[in-house]
Amino acid sequence: MSGPLSTQELEKIDAYWRAANYLSVGQIYLKNNPLLERPLTLEDLKPRLLGHFGTTPGLNFIYVHLNRIIRLHQANMMYLIGPGHGAPGIIANTFLEGSYTETYPNIERNADGLKRLFRQFSWPYGVPSHDAPEVPGSISEGGELGYSLLHAYGAAFDNPGLIVACVVGDGEAETGPLAASWHSNKFLNPATDGAVLPILHLNGYKIANPTLLARIDPDELEALFRGYGYNPYFLEGDDPQTMHQQMAAVLDTLYAEIRAIQHKAREQKDASRPRWPMLILKTPKGWTCPRTVDGKPVEGTWRAHQVPLSKVHSNPEHLRLLEEWLRSYRPQELFDANGTFREELADIAPKGRLRMGANIHANGGKLLVPLVLPNFRDYAVPFETPGSVEVSATQVLGGYLRDVMRKNLGTKNFRMFAPDENASNRLQAVYEASGKRWNARYEDVDESLSTEGRVMEVLSEHLCQGWLEGYLLTGRHGFFSCYEAFIHLIDSMFNQHAKWIKSAKELPWRADIASLNYLLSSHVWRQDHNGFSHQDPGFIDHVANKKADTVRIYLPPDANTLLSVTDHCLRTKNYVNLIIAGKQAAPVWLDRESAVRHCAAGIGTWDWAGHGEGEPDVVMACAGDVPTLETLAAVTVLREWAPELKVRVVNVVDLFTLEPVEDHPHGLNHEDFNRLFTEDKPVIFAFHGYPAIVHKLTYKRANHGNLHVHGYKEEGTTTTPFDMTVLNDMDRYTLALDAIRQAPAVRHRLDAAEQRYSEVSQRHKLYVSEHGEDMPEVKGWKWTAR
Amino acid sequence: MSGPLSTQELEKIDAYWRAANYLSVGQIYLKNNPLLERPLTLEDLKPRLLGHFGTTPGLNFIYVHLNRIIRLHQANMMYLIGPGHGAPGIIANTFLEGSYTETYPNIERNADGLKRLFRQFSWPYGVPSHDAPEVPGSISEGGELGYSLLHAYGAAFDNPGLIVACVVGDGEAETGPLAASWHSNKFLNPATDGAVLPILHLNGYKIANPTLLARIDPDELEALFRGYGYNPYFLEGDDPQTMHQQMAAVLDTLYAEIRAIQHKAREQKDASRPRWPMLILKTPKGWTCPRTVDGKPVEGTWRAHQVPLSKVHSNPEHLRLLEEWLRSYRPQELFDANGTFREELADIAPKGRLRMGANIHANGGKLLVPLVLPNFRDYAVPFETPGSVEVSATQVLGGYLRDVMRKNLGTKNFRMFAPDENASNRLQAVYEASGKRWNARYEDVDESLSTEGRVMEVLSEHLCQGWLEGYLLTGRHGFFSCYEAFIHLIDSMFNQHAKWIKSAKELPWRADIASLNYLLSSHVWRQDHNGFSHQDPGFIDHVANKKADTVRIYLPPDANTLLSVTDHCLRTKNYVNLIIAGKQAAPVWLDRESAVRHCAAGIGTWDWAGHGEGEPDVVMACAGDVPTLETLAAVTVLREWAPELKVRVVNVVDLFTLEPVEDHPHGLNHEDFNRLFTEDKPVIFAFHGYPAIVHKLTYKRANHGNLHVHGYKEEGTTTTPFDMTVLNDMDRYTLALDAIRQAPAVRHRLDAAEQRYSEVSQRHKLYVSEHGEDMPEVKGWKWTAR
Ligand SMILES: Cc1ncc(C[n+]2csc(CCOP(=O)(O)OP(=O)(O)O)c2C)c(N)n1
Ligand SMILES: Cc1ncc(C[n+]2csc(CCOP(=O)(O)OP(=O)(O)O)c2C)c(N)n1
Ligand SMILES: [Mg+2]
Ligand SMILES: [Mg+2]
Repeated sequence: MSGPLSTQELEKIDAYWRAANYLSVGQIYLKNNPLLERPLTLEDLKPRLLGHFGTTPGLNFIYVHLNRIIRLHQANMMYLIGPGHGAPGIIANTFLEGSYTETYPNIERNADGLKRLFRQFSWPYGVPSHDAPEVPGSISEGGELGYSLLHAYGAAFDNPGLIVACVVGDGEAETGPLAASWHSNKFLNPATDGAVLPILHLNGYKIANPTLLARIDPDELEALFRGYGYNPYFLEGDDPQTMHQQMAAVLDTLYAEIRAIQHKAREQKDASRPRWPMLILKTPKGWTCPRTVDGKPVEGTWRAHQVPLSKVHSNPEHLRLLEEWLRSYRPQELFDANGTFREELADIAPKGRLRMGANIHANGGKLLVPLVLPNFRDYAVPFETPGSVEVSATQVLGGYLRDVMRKNLGTKNFRMFAPDENASNRLQAVYEASGKRWNARYEDVDESLSTEGRVMEVLSEHLCQGWLEGYLLTGRHGFFSCYEAFIHLIDSMFNQHAKWIKSAKELPWRADIASLNYLLSSHVWRQDHNGFSHQDPGFIDHVANKKADTVRIYLPPDANTLLSVTDHCLRTKNYVNLIIAGKQAAPVWLDRESAVRHCAAGIGTWDWAGHGEGEPDVVMACAGDVPTLETLAAVTVLREWAPELKVRVVNVVDLFTLEPVEDHPHGLNHEDFNRLFTEDKPVIFAFHGYPAIVHKLTYKRANHGNLHVHGYKEEGTTTTPFDMTVLNDMDRYTLALDAIRQAPAVRHRLDAAEQRYSEVSQRHKLYVSEHGEDMPEVKGWKWTAR
Repeated sequence: MSGPLSTQELEKIDAYWRAANYLSVGQIYLKNNPLLERPLTLEDLKPRLLGHFGTTPGLNFIYVHLNRIIRLHQANMMYLIGPGHGAPGIIANTFLEGSYTETYPNIERNADGLKRLFRQFSWPYGVPSHDAPEVPGSISEGGELGYSLLHAYGAAFDNPGLIVACVVGDGEAETGPLAASWHSNKFLNPATDGAVLPILHLNGYKIANPTLLARIDPDELEALFRGYGYNPYFLEGDDPQTMHQQMAAVLDTLYAEIRAIQHKAREQKDASRPRWPMLILKTPKGWTCPRTVDGKPVEGTWRAHQVPLSKVHSNPEHLRLLEEWLRSYRPQELFDANGTFREELADIAPKGRLRMGANIHANGGKLLVPLVLPNFRDYAVPFETPGSVEVSATQVLGGYLRDVMRKNLGTKNFRMFAPDENASNRLQAVYEASGKRWNARYEDVDESLSTEGRVMEVLSEHLCQGWLEGYLLTGRHGFFSCYEAFIHLIDSMFNQHAKWIKSAKELPWRADIASLNYLLSSHVWRQDHNGFSHQDPGFIDHVANKKADTVRIYLPPDANTLLSVTDHCLRTKNYVNLIIAGKQAAPVWLDRESAVRHCAAGIGTWDWAGHGEGEPDVVMACAGDVPTLETLAAVTVLREWAPELKVRVVNVVDLFTLEPVEDHPHGLNHEDFNRLFTEDKPVIFAFHGYPAIVHKLTYKRANHGNLHVHGYKEEGTTTTPFDMTVLNDMDRYTLALDAIRQAPAVRHRLDAAEQRYSEVSQRHKLYVSEHGEDMPEVKGWKWTAR
């Protein structure tokens, strides 16, 4: 078989590949005798065989051939693998190239190190079975399948020198996020971004089934990827020698094509969308493992997915097959007497930073440049008295974000992401600083689109999230704005990212990355055009389940606090920050400096709204913009219904202040909590989301028994804004009534208050059903000082 | 323009379309003057203009043309629309065909009814703005975009006589679930299933951006759909007359092609996968609305998405344009003096059940046939003493499900769904009754695949969930098994389905549908092959946020209770049932009848495990299989560490028993709760998921202050099963120690216990790091009676 490789090159590449395969099998099976210096015995085996071989030889094959391209061209490449359960292969390769030992010096490049390398894999207090943060060169865990290509594109954005090779599993390709993410090529600018080299790993099977893409006609397969806008190359086979030559040849072609595209875009300033090349690589699942076991085909079938030989402990034939399999890689040719990988083989790997396990982008925190932020105080909304001015909080924030964008255009390290919703969420001012990225066809009518735009909009929450993760993990900054209800689409992606951060923090060699910032708007209380399907504040609960040192939740009550909170979030690292704020015109409560102080504390009394500093009869607490509005309106209602009632208003911006400090770093200590909420007075708490989470955060608090939380209780439809609060018992009248009900001081007023309540709620129902909008007294309500 | 339509037909179809468009605009804008009998004034306008016009004329165009096909062929068709915000069009059409008035008699077919029809839309206590349960003929709300095609396929399965026309928004097509769902055609059997007719609605825009599919080259677009396995037809234009002729012609072709495919499969028994036809329909967004407004193009752009004219209240020119627009449909030609749709036009609609708004499948509960269930007791695992027999609970369940499958093969109304995980979750026995559905290419090596299989496996949780929803909503039954961690992928889909059920229940005309049943296995505590990414029990919390009358959560502690719980779930309607059970071998605690009794109560003391009936010193509570095991082991530890301690064991199967009965129908009343948990004794509670939810459910309970919940606290990796419990402080030793710490009776034993605890936990750490598996005393532990 002729091809670009000399006989010697081919031999070395094959040996290198065999070494990687050998180490992969070793990690899964062995805890001893790593060089097979003596016949394999039961004592050499791990008691629990955990790990996945099926995907691994293919990953190893690609790795060694990418190494060749890197060496040939001094290319800057990252390697992302969708099926992250192929970690044994990545660990093996980073070990062979030396980046593993550099990261973990105790895993030496000798027989001792080999033994430890094998033993630690999927071993208690060792390393996990996936391409986790522990693996050098990884930014994509791959445990939950579907995000590899998104991470790859996110990494390539604004890294014009980088090529991200991304292996997509043919099973992974069936997932929704992956199926949509091929279209990312319409958002990549060949001049200013790097390249993504997708490699569809068509090994034919997933866990227990064939894959769709392996079982459609070849012309359909080709059409699909042409339809996605790629120029697909095909390579299929199982004879290693032939495959090495062909792989080298096709990678030469792919590499040249990438460079030609970039040349055309960069040198010839051709802005048209290229058809990026990709590779469809068809090899047997479990390539090189035993062909049949117990009379059943294994190599090339789903049976190779995890552990091709599973009964090695009890079945001597399996043990024999395992030894035969291991020896088929001829370890004695690969490692010297010390157990060190032979110099002449190790030598074909790239050196230093060019090793994929040492690529600096995969430890993105090392490249992190802090954002240059405008002074958020300059955007604060002035007013004469609290509540006298109404603005759209997100629109105000849009002005600030526009300037965040502007100030970092030079550094090219900030992007915004939204599922077609930035304008709907009133952040459109950002388009003044940078357009919406669009590398597909333009028409005359288009507005604010740009081939160099830094605002990423596509109708997929998954794409937004995945790109952003890839962008953050490679050391940049981002901001994701989304409708509150639909952020649940990426619940599981958030989980995985939060888990990544948690694990990465425990690794001293991983540098901190910028936080992932969510702004949820068009929230549950103001879905004017939409209805019940758009009403769901449960992301708060979802986020709150993750590690306290990783997550933050902010409910700024107005525009000025939203500015302060966002400024803070953009400076933080290693968190997920969740900010929830409305887009509709709403009162501004705190002036610039009060807003800053309030946000710094995260919680506080609003003495101007209550009866000042003395001990109150009731605490009216609130978190969220609509709850704050209703609470303040309730205070004015109480002036009429129970004038002598002494009210204290407490507003919560930082939700975790409610939790004890033992449980969350932002939590109040018990004295401070009791100072705010008292130890025995009723607390009427209006909350943006599902009420239960307030109980969950406060159940250890002294006054918890007196907490009466009003929030969203899953009642909704297309109705007026105020009626939404009525449907969920969070309206001003219900809050006022509850205060009177709970406060012994005014119990005598309860009957009258109940009567007034039933009058006003009846008036409300009749008015809105007749007029289709809220009563003038509600719509036109303004805060007034006592 | 010639074509299949006679001049008269064409005129009628156009008039019908104009009527639908007129009614759509009317719903968005008018509360009065529905027939424009006098010039439009401000008083005629709704105060808040809520709704979406952009998508609607296209939907209406398709509707009237499908009507023609239905009439021509007496076809049984359903109409699903992805962009559910096009509801004004569906409401208009069902009104015109009469199915709306049949469902809602107060919306009469005259001027009065018209006025009410307009007024109620997006009006308080009226109807929501989306294609919600309130809309006759709908099974897909469309509020959260991406699931229309999945619902369509789910509806078509096992309905060989049905054609499901499904409009996919070109924006919607960018979502992950939708992008993957085109591949559903590889799971549809042309002989035994119905047909899906996908119509890609290429109106060019989403909310504020062009769509990808409208901005790629035509050859890419065609290749993409050929690659997805379809035979795409294209129709593009904006001249109504031409478009009517062409649409009629192309639908004739599409219909004939569908029938030809079915004929080939059914009559000629050709089982090869057909290339189903689909339509790519390119029309202007907001077709027929004002071409320009304020000098800016509106028709054919994103500006038409919601309300093309938004300033009608304040801008007389907008008001004039609105009137002109409404009159452009020539309402006087469409409605008679009474405001009744003219007979000769109404007459072109299908009649009776053939009207798409009256299709019985869209009110699937009407077709629901209860499952024939085997006696689950026959599958119960016998034992001599509790804990003496170990089995895989899900494997036992597999045998039962196999027979559920068998007994309902004739009725064809039960399918199982899993993302490539049924076998991994040990349910493979079901393949004995029915294979895995596969209509793509076969190879020799394949096992358990079948073109008529009723087990649906694809590597996409979204596809499983979406198909299942469509299947349930059309009156059938299903069962979804999934890895616990990755069920979060469909959090948002679950939300939408739970919302659908809640709203549908409030409509007397909607019949009850079968519950959506989840079995989560490969759960957080036993991720032997995988690690941290696979460890997340948060779906419990997510489900618990939904309406109490819609959701149920079960944590059966062993195989026998799993059988009983599953049997129960399969009989229920209108719920989402969540069952969590492990797949690894684990002890069976309850015999057949005890299991039945325990599950019926949902919670109970296990007297055989504790100190019998007297008042205990401590309550050891548990929910979930691993927590139950650790709790019972803790009881045996306590016998050594604090022999005099009187222990009561309480096991929770039905999680909502913990909640007060006021909050959940399954909740215990306070007396019963106190009887179980005492009012003042410490409760050491080992819980399957995040601990906080137990507090959330019990914070109103008398003894809440004494509840010490141990559960998953987001500590995980690839380690031994027991070490997972140690990492999360839920192991037997920690539980035992906590019991001694909290129970005053044995406080004197605390020092000694702490010492023993530190000894044993050190021994554990050393042992697992040395041996890679759990200590013999742990692995080999067996329950023994006192
Ligand atoms: C979203 C998701 N669903 C299910 C799984 C369980 N799972 C692990 S590996 C696998 C099969 C992967 O197949 P493929 O992508 O083809 O990888 P390979 O064949 O290379 O191993 C599945 C379904 C998962 N990891 N993620
Ligand atoms: C998953 C999801 N994300 C975002 C939205 C917000 N949204 C509502 S309509 C719409 C655009 C829909 O565009 P398309 O599917 O093309 O529908 P059409 O043009 O026919 O209105 C968007 C993004 C949504 N409804 N669902
Ligand atoms: Mg595969
Ligand atoms: Mg569109």
